[in-house]
Amino acid sequence: MKIGIVGAGMVGSAAGYAIALKGTASKIVFVDYNAALAKAQAEDIAHAVPFASSTVVMAGDYADLKGAKAVILAAGVGQKPGESRLQLLARNAEVFRQIIGKVLDAAPDAVLLIATNPVDIMTQIATELSGLPPTRVIGSGTILDTARFRHLIGEHLGVSPRSVHAYVLGEHGDSEVLCWSSARAGALSVKEFSAQMRVPLTEGIKAKIDDGVRNAAYTIINGKGATWYGIGAGLERLFRAVARDEQTVLSVSIVTPKVEGVSNVALSLPRIVGAQGVVADLFPELDDAEHEALGASARLLKTTLDALEY
Amino acid sequence: MKIGIVGAGMVGSAAGYAIALKGTASKIVFVDYNAALAKAQAEDIAHAVPFASSTVVMAGDYADLKGAKAVILAAGVGQKPGESRLQLLARNAEVFRQIIGKVLDAAPDAVLLIATNPVDIMTQIATELSGLPPTRVIGSGTILDTARFRHLIGEHLGVSPRSVHAYVLGEHGDSEVLCWSSARAGALSVKEFSAQMRVPLTEGIKAKIDDGVRNAAYTIINGKGATWYGIGAGLERLFRAVARDEQTVLSVSIVTPKVEGVSNVALSLPRIVGAQGVVADLFPELDDAEHEALGASARLLKTTLDALEY
Amino acid sequence: MKIGIVGAGMVGSAAGYAIALKGTASKIVFVDYNAALAKAQAEDIAHAVPFASSTVVMAGDYADLKGAKAVILAAGVGQKPGESRLQLLARNAEVFRQIIGKVLDAAPDAVLLIATNPVDIMTQIATELSGLPPTRVIGSGTILDTARFRHLIGEHLGVSPRSVHAYVLGEHGDSEVLCWSSARAGALSVKEFSAQMRVPLTEGIKAKIDDGVRNAAYTIINGKGATWYGIGAGLERLFRAVARDEQTVLSVSIVTPKVEGVSNVALSLPRIVGAQGVVADLFPELDDAEHEALGASARLLKTTLDALEY
Amino acid sequence: MKIGIVGAGMVGSAAGYAIALKGTASKIVFVDYNAALAKAQAEDIAHAVPFASSTVVMAGDYADLKGAKAVILAAGVGQKPGESRLQLLARNAEVFRQIIGKVLDAAPDAVLLIATNPVDIMTQIATELSGLPPTRVIGSGTILDTARFRHLIGEHLGVSPRSVHAYVLGEHGDSEVLCWSSARAGALSVKEFSAQMRVPLTEGIKAKIDDGVRNAAYTIINGKGATWYGIGAGLERLFRAVARDEQTVLSVSIVTPKVEGVSNVALSLPRIVGAQGVVADLFPELDDAEHEALGASARLLKTTLDALEY
Ligand SMILES: NC(=O)c1ccc[n+]([C@@H]2O[C@H](COP(=O)([O-])OP(=O)(O)OC[C@H]3O[C@@H](n4cnc5c(N)ncnc54)[C@H](O)[C@@H]3O)[C@@H](O)[C@H]2O)c1
Ligand SMILES: NC(=O)c1ccc[n+]([C@@H]2O[C@H](COP(=O)([O-])OP(=O)(O)OC[C@H]3O[C@@H](n4cnc5c(N)ncnc54)[C@H](O)[C@@H]3O)[C@@H](O)[C@H]2O)c1
Ligand SMILES: NC(=O)c1ccc[n+]([C@@H]2O[C@H](COP(=O)([O-])OP(=O)(O)OC[C@H]3O[C@@H](n4cnc5c(N)ncnc54)[C@H](O)[C@@H]3O)[C@@H](O)[C@H]2O)c1
Ligand SMILES: NC(=O)c1ccc[n+]([C@@H]2O[C@H](COP(=O)([O-])OP(=O)(O)OC[C@H]3O[C@@H](n4cnc5c(N)ncnc54)[C@H](O)[C@@H]3O)[C@@H](O)[C@H]2O)c1
Repeated sequence: MKIGIVGAGMVGSAAGYAIALKGTASKIVFVDYNAALAKAQAEDIAHAVPFASSTVVMAGDYADLKGAKAVILAAGVGQKPGESRLQLLARNAEVFRQIIGKVLDAAPDAVLLIATNPVDIMTQIATELSGLPPTRVIGSGTILDTARFRHLIGEHLGVSPRSVHAYVLGEHGDSEVLCWSSARAGALSVKEFSAQMRVPLTEGIKAKIDDGVRNAAYTIINGKGATWYGIGAGLERLFRAVARDEQTVLSVSIVTPKVEGVSNVALSLPRIVGAQGVVADLFPELDDAEHEALGASARLLKTTLDALEY
Repeated sequence: MKIGIVGAGMVGSAAGYAIALKGTASKIVFVDYNAALAKAQAEDIAHAVPFASSTVVMAGDYADLKGAKAVILAAGVGQKPGESRLQLLARNAEVFRQIIGKVLDAAPDAVLLIATNPVDIMTQIATELSGLPPTRVIGSGTILDTARFRHLIGEHLGVSPRSVHAYVLGEHGDSEVLCWSSARAGALSVKEFSAQMRVPLTEGIKAKIDDGVRNAAYTIINGKGATWYGIGAGLERLFRAVARDEQTVLSVSIVTPKVEGVSNVALSLPRIVGAQGVVADLFPELDDAEHEALGASARLLKTTLDALEY
Repeated sequence: MKIGIVGAGMVGSAAGYAIALKGTASKIVFVDYNAALAKAQAEDIAHAVPFASSTVVMAGDYADLKGAKAVILAAGVGQKPGESRLQLLARNAEVFRQIIGKVLDAAPDAVLLIATNPVDIMTQIATELSGLPPTRVIGSGTILDTARFRHLIGEHLGVSPRSVHAYVLGEHGDSEVLCWSSARAGALSVKEFSAQMRVPLTEGIKAKIDDGVRNAAYTIINGKGATWYGIGAGLERLFRAVARDEQTVLSVSIVTPKVEGVSNVALSLPRIVGAQGVVADLFPELDDAEHEALGASARLLKTTLDALEY
Repeated sequence: MKIGIVGAGMVGSAAGYAIALKGTASKIVFVDYNAALAKAQAEDIAHAVPFASSTVVMAGDYADLKGAKAVILAAGVGQKPGESRLQLLARNAEVFRQIIGKVLDAAPDAVLLIATNPVDIMTQIATELSGLPPTRVIGSGTILDTARFRHLIGEHLGVSPRSVHAYVLGEHGDSEVLCWSSARAGALSVKEFSAQMRVPLTEGIKAKIDDGVRNAAYTIINGKGATWYGIGAGLERLFRAVARDEQTVLSVSIVTPKVEGVSNVALSLPRIVGAQGVVADLFPELDDAEHEALGASARLLKTTLDALEY
């Protein structure tokens, strides 16, 4: 099974490395307009293969995406001094305009997996530019924030993050919504869990975890300039759900017909992911504040989108 | 990391095969009073290793368990014609009396993982015979029933069993309790999930799933005489939690000081498992009927135990 | 990626269990004329899945093989008292006659992986009955003997079997040829390796290893009645090479145009295996005795085949 | 099992990411004198864990290395303008002088795995500074060059790199020796393999592969500034051999009593690696030119070492 990765920067390459280490694809093709970079990443990762799997890793042209089951879009441009967020966005939209037609010419049946930020907006743009059904254009959305949320809850409660079931919804960004009301650890609500384990879970601690999730990227960016490993593994996970037709629940972003009264907006909800992309959306039970916050997040995304001309 | 497996029958060998395929241990030692069988299983599994991992697989004597991080007890005798369940139990208790001292002589620090049926009673016996703290003598309990429960819910709802979070508590046997009230799929209660997915989850369907879980073993036994693959993988999972110090939540059986008013009885609850064995017990939120059923299950086990002279 | 397994006995189920544990396929379909057995194996293995992967495991009819990338044939009948080897063979040929048409009706593009013994003859029969190109009808052949050979060499020399590179050629059976002349461990010939490690590798020891490989099955059959774990893992390995399009070298059996002067005989050579089946055959450098023995093995197979009327 | 990684730059973090994705360790501790960087890498990788394993990832102080089974040393300083190679080396030696005592204070029984370049010299320095037996101070050496060599041979011959058995010996650097004379693919010498596959393997092609191996780093550095994924996976592989006590053959660098007439020099040979570090050295059969080249490589390393004052 072939996967294409367009954008061979830190995020694209960390995803490719994870896919090669786990052997999730039999072939990885990197495409980047910086051809020397694509080649360097492919070679560096190819040298990892003999230690791990049998994945073939190469750099190529769009035509080499032919037959790809999925294509990760991790191409993007950085902020220029003095540039507004919207101007940056318009330039990233321009990048997608250049890319998406060529991707679909080569791989018309591929599921598109979007990583480029702001990921929800870019997912919406990719959906429109591609003309594909929204279920086949999936943004990584809050898959990573959800992982961070579980990691911090697990760390605090003394339990493996894999036994924590909790979701972050809405925008991948400041307006995202941490669903505390339905967060669980093992068989229990986190509230009950903390009571039984005699680990306090005060509003203060929740605020600290909230802050930790919301600002995790900033802490990491502070220490190393950007984030790539977490999202790289998240993209491998998402691709695995497609490649193995898993019907697994993941919190990812697609254009959603209606959410909290807002129509046609891409944001994250828990969704069932399989070979064809998103199979179904799940609307978690939320408390009032969470409903409110999710609505606000949806409206914010919609407003940005409306402001954007592309 | 070394693991010992005492009892090289179908269950012990299916566990060893899973451990070798996944490379969870670096060394597996099979012990069985049928030495030719232990040797045959070790060789058959050893031939699987070059395709999968670097685990060394051997048959040995109790002394070869030295240094084992954990020892699976899957030794047992079958029912003789005309023999009562209690008489069979007494004979299996006798098997453990022969085994446990020798295991602990060789591997005094090992975590014991009990598979022999009736697993809750045998776990209690093993705890008493060994003199170990109950947290280090872990019965596979309802780990398998929990897997079956998740499998059937997932199949019915159209979602991967790995996205289903549901537990079976109490006895591994007829009195076990399926916790429907806290069963979840993805971010939702199964009730809400089924509503959103427009898949009916009537009492009739729940009864059918209940039946499927409770009688899964019988269906399998009907078709193939006994069950071994599911429990083999369950034992690998349990050992992995110990070997990797995971702090994962698994529904397993240990002697529990107090449950539904019954003291000192081994039965299954969700518990956090790590390198030292069980780190903490979780008491799920139950509805009245489930509380009642769990109490009944605990009392039933206690009654059997009291009736048993060993 | 779907795999079918026809014949849900010990070998078929051990292969399915390995595939589920490793997640090599996304779907496994068991078919057996003993439908209750197929269902029991599928359920037992399905219960292993929540601990390991997301593979869907089911029992079905031939029609359910539709779209399978590969189909393992592990169906077979046992020897009746007084029955000659050739008579048994004729009955197994009859089994394949019943199966193969139905398999290809449902999955015309599948690669066939043959396990039924005598595997070389059955591979040749399957090739003829199916009318497929020989490269798409692959017998497990000496894949297992090769694993045993590496295991015993490694054990004797004190090195992981995965660092041993050695092959068993010819018939999967008494006439098989252990290629000592090209056997290597790490970067060295085994002779040089043993010298450097100061581990003797006398003719006596080689004879013992030879005996251990040739009679491994008998030792195991002696202890447990039959072998299944090694071959189960071998079939998973073979399927993995197809599923991941690996271009890996494995010693497997296909109908070979010419080997040691014998034409059109199925036997094992190292061959490169990928998505389409066997991509190329490798003829190892042999010493005179090995050439002689391989020729004898080929002629023996040819003689049996000529004697068989089916 | 705990692993420490001192030096949380690109190489250290790529190794940690691979270890977390594969679950090779249960705990990873990053130490760097840039504490913010260590924390950022640990957090970024920790966010990858919920998608893959149960590894706990943290940043810490030297004291947190307590109990580590192995410690990777990937700390290093970059070249300053106008600085000679020897001056740079002296500064890296100084880094190790600061680190090694503290590592051993906390983890006196750890196996040291050295990545810092020039890796052979740094391995020798680490051995001397630590006072440990040379078998417990292992440089990654040509583990990566060997992977590259296999990758390029496999690519050229149309076979998986995992079926290629070939080694690069000597210095990890310009004087390294590609052992063509013993290089094999599947059961064949590469020469015979290329003849049978009708893929030419002329001196020109060999020179191109030689160049590809020797200059792979430069190509990658050209495209992305440095290499990290290949070596990261190589360090995971090396640690796995220790963690699982594999007795696998890997080409790594330790101080070797005598090689081609040169005494006490750290360079790469194929060596058997297990829980205690290097268990045995293998001296491959070389042709005259290779002997000559290996001697030259050894002498070159020795000369550098003698020139270095630290
Ligand atoms: N979704 C998430 O959770 C998440 C997390 C981290 C980063 N990101 C985003 O992922 C994107 C990539 O981040 P990065 O760190 O890898 O950046 P990067 O700068 O390292 O890589 C971006 C790559 O895109 C390539 N590119 C730019 N325009 C292109 C075009 N027209 N065609 C082909 N290639 C083109 C560049 O050459 C570059 O190699 C960014 O938008 C970043 O914000 C998302
Ligand atoms: N916990 C579960 O969910 C679960 C599921 C399936 C089976 N089981 C139980 O697991 C046990 C094993 O089942 P199996 O199918 O492998 O049975 P089996 O008969 O195939 O194997 C039992 C093995 O124990 C050995 N043994 C008996 N007495 C011994 C002694 N004194 N010392 C050493 N070895 C001894 C026997 O030689 C035999 O090889 C049974 O009690 C069975 O009921 C439990
Ligand atoms: N290639 C090897 O290295 C190797 C190793 C071990 C066993 N084997 C062979 O594998 C085969 C299977 O062995 P096993 O131990 O699983 O035997 P088994 O008796 O357990 O299973 C054989 C299965 O085939 C089924 N079957 C028979 N006729 C059928 C038909 N017409 N249609 C559908 N299903 C049919 C039976 O119902 C049975 O379930 C045997 O031929 C055995 O000799 C090969
Ligand atoms: N062996 C190989 O095959 C191979 C391959 C690639 C790179 N390398 C080498 O690996 C080393 C690391 O490379 P990189 O790309 O990660 O570099 P890097 O600069 O990204 O990381 C080096 C890290 O070491 C830390 N460090 C420096 N001095 C320290 C001290 N005294 N104590 C603690 N930490 C200290 C730095 O803060 C930095 O984070 C280099 O020497 C490089 O040449 C080796």
